[in-house]
Amino acid sequence: MKHLLSAQDLTQNDIIALLDMADHMAEINTRPVPKVPALRGKTVVSVFFEDSTRTRLSFETAAKRLSADTMTFSASTSSLNKGESLRDTIETLSAMRVDAFVVRHKSSGVPLQITEWTDASVINAGDGWHQHPTQALTDAFTITRSFGTPHTLEGRTIAIVGDVLHSRVARSNIAVLTKLGAKVVLVGPSTLIPIQAQQWPVEILHSLDEVVAEVDVVYMLRMQRERMETAFVPSLGEYTARFGLTPDRVSRMLAHALVMHPGPMNRGIDMVVDPAQVSGSRILQQVTNGIPVRMAVLFTLLGSGGSTALATGADL
Amino acid sequence: MKHLLSAQDLTQNDIIALLDMADHMAEINTRPVPKVPALRGKTVVSVFFEDSTRTRLSFETAAKRLSADTMTFSASTSSLNKGESLRDTIETLSAMRVDAFVVRHKSSGVPLQITEWTDASVINAGDGWHQHPTQALTDAFTITRSFGTPHTLEGRTIAIVGDVLHSRVARSNIAVLTKLGAKVVLVGPSTLIPIQAQQWPVEILHSLDEVVAEVDVVYMLRMQRERMETAFVPSLGEYTARFGLTPDRVSRMLAHALVMHPGPMNRGIDMVVDPAQVSGSRILQQVTNGIPVRMAVLFTLLGSGGSTALATGADL
Amino acid sequence: MKHLLSAQDLTQNDIIALLDMADHMAEINTRPVPKVPALRGKTVVSVFFEDSTRTRLSFETAAKRLSADTMTFSASTSSLNKGESLRDTIETLSAMRVDAFVVRHKSSGVPLQITEWTDASVINAGDGWHQHPTQALTDAFTITRSFGTPHTLEGRTIAIVGDVLHSRVARSNIAVLTKLGAKVVLVGPSTLIPIQAQQWPVEILHSLDEVVAEVDVVYMLRMQRERMETAFVPSLGEYTARFGLTPDRVSRMLAHALVMHPGPMNRGIDMVVDPAQVSGSRILQQVTNGIPVRMAVLFTLLGSGGSTALATGADL
Repeated sequence: MKHLLSAQDLTQNDIIALLDMADHMAEINTRPVPKVPALRGKTVVSVFFEDSTRTRLSFETAAKRLSADTMTFSASTSSLNKGESLRDTIETLSAMRVDAFVVRHKSSGVPLQITEWTDASVINAGDGWHQHPTQALTDAFTITRSFGTPHTLEGRTIAIVGDVLHSRVARSNIAVLTKLGAKVVLVGPSTLIPIQAQQWPVEILHSLDEVVAEVDVVYMLRMQRERMETAFVPSLGEYTARFGLTPDRVSRMLAHALVMHPGPMNRGIDMVVDPAQVSGSRILQQVTNGIPVRMAVLFTLLGSGGSTALATGADL
Repeated sequence: MKHLLSAQDLTQNDIIALLDMADHMAEINTRPVPKVPALRGKTVVSVFFEDSTRTRLSFETAAKRLSADTMTFSASTSSLNKGESLRDTIETLSAMRVDAFVVRHKSSGVPLQITEWTDASVINAGDGWHQHPTQALTDAFTITRSFGTPHTLEGRTIAIVGDVLHSRVARSNIAVLTKLGAKVVLVGPSTLIPIQAQQWPVEILHSLDEVVAEVDVVYMLRMQRERMETAFVPSLGEYTARFGLTPDRVSRMLAHALVMHPGPMNRGIDMVVDPAQVSGSRILQQVTNGIPVRMAVLFTLLGSGGSTALATGADL
Repeated sequence: MKHLLSAQDLTQNDIIALLDMADHMAEINTRPVPKVPALRGKTVVSVFFEDSTRTRLSFETAAKRLSADTMTFSASTSSLNKGESLRDTIETLSAMRVDAFVVRHKSSGVPLQITEWTDASVINAGDGWHQHPTQALTDAFTITRSFGTPHTLEGRTIAIVGDVLHSRVARSNIAVLTKLGAKVVLVGPSTLIPIQAQQWPVEILHSLDEVVAEVDVVYMLRMQRERMETAFVPSLGEYTARFGLTPDRVSRMLAHALVMHPGPMNRGIDMVVDPAQVSGSRILQQVTNGIPVRMAVLFTLLGSGGSTALATGADL
């Protein structure tokens, strides 16, 4: 594995190997000094064309815990402002001997395109509506650890709720969760479920109430206020009434069921309940788990002897 | 001690212990390689909602000299722009296993509020008009070392001059300096001395000339031009005439007296004299001392066995 | 050598010593872990008043490979916005025990002026139209290594093409390349060749076609679109027709001749040919070489026993 561009490229075995590695990394994170020299001398560059403090800090923390050097390329202060092409920018950075690019861009496919311009590994940290594979791996890791079933989701049903149409998180999660054996139900207004979802290995529903009492995980997506302007939903109030996670809906969930959200939450719209009041909430655990999962991805792509370590779980 | 939110929370013994520790840190800073592994594996995150290069770099340098990892959360490029609440932002960062937040915010009380949302230590790096405790510790450290009296200010008189009303530096310094035994005189126009200062353990004067020849330290505050618009002073010229530090006033100071300023200076307004021409100026020394003092604060809050090291001054 | 302000300050011996050191640094960069502890405990601060991702990351990477700590002072978020003078800013940073400032500023002479306000080393990373010495050293290093002639340019002819008037890169390259024995030809419209160039040790031509088939290196300068507004050239199309590097012109170059460009390229204006299609292109190699050259500069200015290491090439 050289790049991580899409959750759809991963086989079930790839996913299990990454989650096994993430277990090992999670143990490292509990040590008094949560650092290992595994990637000493490697350089990881964050190239973020869209703001994302959460994801960028998660990757940087992961890289630092593996002793890699990190640098941030911010599009707003770069030569891109002087008219330099994206290709020239990437080739220039690459010529400084970068080992991995962590890329976020508002256009789908940019991370894939970047692989043609560099010998470095490329990790997709979110591209348009397309993919955000490390989020999906983090979510799968969080669910299987919560249920104590490493690393399978056989027999589990997961509802992904809200604006599926614009969500790279949803697309990535469908790929990872179904490959681990889960049944996925998409829940949202028909305007926010993509037409091609008919061909996906999912069930589609238009009412959260229909499913909230039966699923093992309620995975809430972020509902962006700006969607209102383009009339995907008649009003935010109506959206929240049908698809928001309210205390009442939480009370009808199964006793063991989990609540998840990729963040940032839009309180009062997608999340009406305060997650701190929900015992099944794993929303902060998702953030915590993002670090060992991204450590596992970085080590798998950049570590020498990565595959051996994956197979044996040997000490780093 | 878990947090450092206000100089008013510190006892005389706390202050002396921190300054003793800062002595030790100052020695480390004179070494050829001014670094110790005391906080290896700890993560310190700067969360600055107001710009402050000076304070942020001072904390980051302090953290790096103790071998901590540092990260910067910049409010301007964060999910706060997407409508995420401050609480969700802090909880999210905290879930990545942060050991300390260094917080600056334009509203008083934000650092205290943040302590309710995280298990990490919180250090107030300036909140509104309220407090800036590490500046006050730095200033006390600078004065006592200048006078060779570690760490007491018994018998010393310190004039704090200018816009006390809007100054968190003044409020923090009053707490620290008086606890070390100093007499503090506030000097400024009555519009810029808060009414409640009548209850503080200070003397209040409205003329710098009255006191400049008698005090051990003249501590100049920054006079912000924007105060003019809100009519706190009739004109900047008049303000400078009565409260600016001019060469003439410097010439009337006691031979051993010090000139201090927290920076950034407003030359020609608060500082009319060039500090480079004033032998008693400790303005750059304040910047230098900010690093060992902040190292002492970080180590006291985050170091294992901190209290022992404080007591014995043992090698790190 | 304490500062590096201008390529004109360097003697032939200085240049050769730096390039020898850069050879050593280039070898370090090929190691599995491309890091040495040579500058452990040193602090290098980037002070960039003009954006330049390329140059800033190159210096930061160089500093990190020598194990120095790096910090970035961004003019846009600093106290300069509160009216602090440049001098006070530099003195403040300097008081935190900075070992080197790497400075970029739109005004010529700022790095020189900064040397009066600090005991730290100052490296000019580009000041106005004046100088960019590490770029010129990088270019000389790239040419001599390409030709396998360490470190002389005797008998070589180098054409510098385009907007010489506004180019600090051109000014620095003329100094370094001629000191190593090269003949330099400036090629551009008369409006973009400075009048004083008559006194420089160069030949001046106004047609690229006249010289393209005879020189060892075609060094293209960036043609900035904004120059059009001030009428230095009648139209970009006409500029490109006479001075752009087209496939046709490349086909007439000598078999061994090199194409270089300091970046960022303005494709279709200065570079019409795709450099990836030109076997003699060293444009990405210039970026790669920037790192060992800047490591050599940093180590020469900041390393203890730097001169010894220069003389003996001993292991760091």
